[in-house]
Amino acid sequence: MTRATSSLPSSSSDIHSLMQSIGRAAVIAAEQLALAPTAAKDRALAAAAAAIRNRSAAILKSNAEDMAEAEGAGLGAAMLDRLRLDAKRIEAMARGLEEVRALPDPIGRVSAEWERPNGLRITRVRVPLGVIGIIYESRPNVTADAGALCLKSGNASILRGGSESARSSTAIHGCLVEGLIAADLPSAAIQLVPTSDRAAVGEMLGAMQEYIDVLVPRGGKSLVARVQQEARVPVIGHLEGNCHIYVDRDAELDMARAITINSKMRRTGVCGAAETLLVDRGCGPEVLPTLIAELISAGCEVRGDETARAADARVRPAQELDWHTEYLDAIIALRVVDGVDAAIAHITRYGSSHTEAIVTRNAATAERFLERVDSAIVLHNASTQFADGGEFGMGAEIGISTDRFHARGPVGVEQLTSYKYVVHGSGQVRP
Amino acid sequence: MTRATSSLPSSSSDIHSLMQSIGRAAVIAAEQLALAPTAAKDRALAAAAAAIRNRSAAILKSNAEDMAEAEGAGLGAAMLDRLRLDAKRIEAMARGLEEVRALPDPIGRVSAEWERPNGLRITRVRVPLGVIGIIYESRPNVTADAGALCLKSGNASILRGGSESARSSTAIHGCLVEGLIAADLPSAAIQLVPTSDRAAVGEMLGAMQEYIDVLVPRGGKSLVARVQQEARVPVIGHLEGNCHIYVDRDAELDMARAITINSKMRRTGVCGAAETLLVDRGCGPEVLPTLIAELISAGCEVRGDETARAADARVRPAQELDWHTEYLDAIIALRVVDGVDAAIAHITRYGSSHTEAIVTRNAATAERFLERVDSAIVLHNASTQFADGGEFGMGAEIGISTDRFHARGPVGVEQLTSYKYVVHGSGQVRP
Repeated sequence: MTRATSSLPSSSSDIHSLMQSIGRAAVIAAEQLALAPTAAKDRALAAAAAAIRNRSAAILKSNAEDMAEAEGAGLGAAMLDRLRLDAKRIEAMARGLEEVRALPDPIGRVSAEWERPNGLRITRVRVPLGVIGIIYESRPNVTADAGALCLKSGNASILRGGSESARSSTAIHGCLVEGLIAADLPSAAIQLVPTSDRAAVGEMLGAMQEYIDVLVPRGGKSLVARVQQEARVPVIGHLEGNCHIYVDRDAELDMARAITINSKMRRTGVCGAAETLLVDRGCGPEVLPTLIAELISAGCEVRGDETARAADARVRPAQELDWHTEYLDAIIALRVVDGVDAAIAHITRYGSSHTEAIVTRNAATAERFLERVDSAIVLHNASTQFADGGEFGMGAEIGISTDRFHARGPVGVEQLTSYKYVVHGSGQVRP
Repeated sequence: MTRATSSLPSSSSDIHSLMQSIGRAAVIAAEQLALAPTAAKDRALAAAAAAIRNRSAAILKSNAEDMAEAEGAGLGAAMLDRLRLDAKRIEAMARGLEEVRALPDPIGRVSAEWERPNGLRITRVRVPLGVIGIIYESRPNVTADAGALCLKSGNASILRGGSESARSSTAIHGCLVEGLIAADLPSAAIQLVPTSDRAAVGEMLGAMQEYIDVLVPRGGKSLVARVQQEARVPVIGHLEGNCHIYVDRDAELDMARAITINSKMRRTGVCGAAETLLVDRGCGPEVLPTLIAELISAGCEVRGDETARAADARVRPAQELDWHTEYLDAIIALRVVDGVDAAIAHITRYGSSHTEAIVTRNAATAERFLERVDSAIVLHNASTQFADGGEFGMGAEIGISTDRFHARGPVGVEQLTSYKYVVHGSGQVRP
């Protein structure tokens, strides 16, 4: 087993120098990438997909080494599952690159155009953000996804993966670089930070502010919290998804059942999974017991308030903490509320402004909920698990932003751009 | 003369408490403002404009006190001019409020709408950012402008003006609050920080991150630098405008003269004023001497390279520092370059990515410049002084952003918004 971080710098000044040179190379690559034709970027993505397929044996070997070390270090099952690659996951990665390739190129697109009374013609044109830093944890496929999205949107990327997946990410990154070279694009357009030293993250958050235009943390709460606390660089943050379903008195029961079960149980570990179910006290007497029974028979633990427990003895008591919790597990908090305004008040107090859904046939109630719930995504009569860039038709995404600034909701190639104003005149001067 | 800051907190823990309560009040006001109808916001702006006209005597009296103190403290003439109010400036402030009132309300506007194959209808709807903190210096009119723009865009604002203008800003702020009350909007929708203690700025940059969604620094380099260095909150930054004009070999001389003089001399103190003139070595022999002579006879000092000095003995030698300098004065740096690519290279090296113009009749050369110069605003055959939200047809602006993130170029009401996704379904669940 080779040490993935063998000949790498260890002193903090070495890491500072390393990261500075990565930053400088990224800025130069970003200038070239901003002008790269769509065809070149697409060629690079196609070649990278081919390289991932061709080198799948080597990637699997690197991943096996990462897995062995992680198992030796006693990593948990969920972490090991995120780290594990197999033939199917490698094929999914290659297809992911091809899907990004198939997306329309956002760069150079005119998003607005108008003429002024003095004859000046103003166009607002999409340009890349520049250099994007991505800090992630154990999933090695993020290396491919994030590198590809940044490339398609004309941005240079600096990828800093977790130490557990260092060998896997290095192997995958090699395929991306092969693609860049095949398309005559600068190989520094996608750089992987070659050290697991945490000081490298500190450099990205602070000392590299001259080079990095935006940071995207992808990972658990402690990573995101550290980034939001320390970053001197703009951040597209992805905080927790404490998502709610509100079943209104005017809901159709079958629809409420289907949406509740799907929102909670389709996948419990995704950020768009529902964590709290709010049921209107005005619902018919069969609604609450039916929803509880469905959840429990689907394998979900229900933690409810007094009314919910009175409806079904299997409901465990909910604590204050439950309303705040993103379980990411087969557990749901259940509260009975007095109508849509009480539901909105609960969500305003406990929600994380990610994704919430209302189930109702009453259009006015739905509009009130959709307008007043201040979340990135609000849904009427649909599952919270649609919170996904692919489901929105945006292609791949780098995450779901819970920020309000720059990008909110799914972050795809369009959200990884800025714009410039191009003004055509015929000699106009300002009076 | 009253002390504007008489009964105010002085210890840092008092200021912390004060700013926390301002932050909490702003968040509550922002929730109400997000749902406020256009008519209410417009009524508040109209009533505030009326109050400014009605109370002009009191505002002038407060301003006279600020001016007396500033003169006593030995403030420079430029600073005193920024601080000074007169009947004309007060009327301009009132008219400014009415202009913001006349702008279309961005909130609730659908910026994109599409349907998915599964029947989900997705709309992207503009919502306010929330709470905007504005830190500015001596111009008291910023109190009215910034408060009005934030109100129109549905945002609560926390205004922190300079100590020199404290009495003037307090008087103006009183008129804004009168407008809010007249329209039944929360008076905390526009708050003025009632202390000149610099610790209040520190609170806005750091401890108030829970309450403030975006900070806008409006002021000199040291303020902006402090904000960019310390802020834990997203910032819409306005860095310097080291703007360039490039006169190409294919420029029409009369147009080049008019654009050069207007870009530099219309107003020298605005961020869109040109600071460096680049002249193509391929221009006819009359171009360089003509431009230099025009600039000098317009009262501009010219600091040039060897070639420029050879063309006119009145040109002073330019130092390396001149290429970096935003003079904001009747001084221009002049360099002779070898064609458009050398001009682009100079701008890439020395520019501040604010606004640059090319003068040429050659469409291909123009396109090359417009595509490759990475600035918020690039102009072909027009003056750099068009860098202005009003001239862009965006109405009033809170500044020109030199950031790439969120907003670039003029920041008007639309740039002070975020968005949410509203999804209408008919029972869809995710497979």
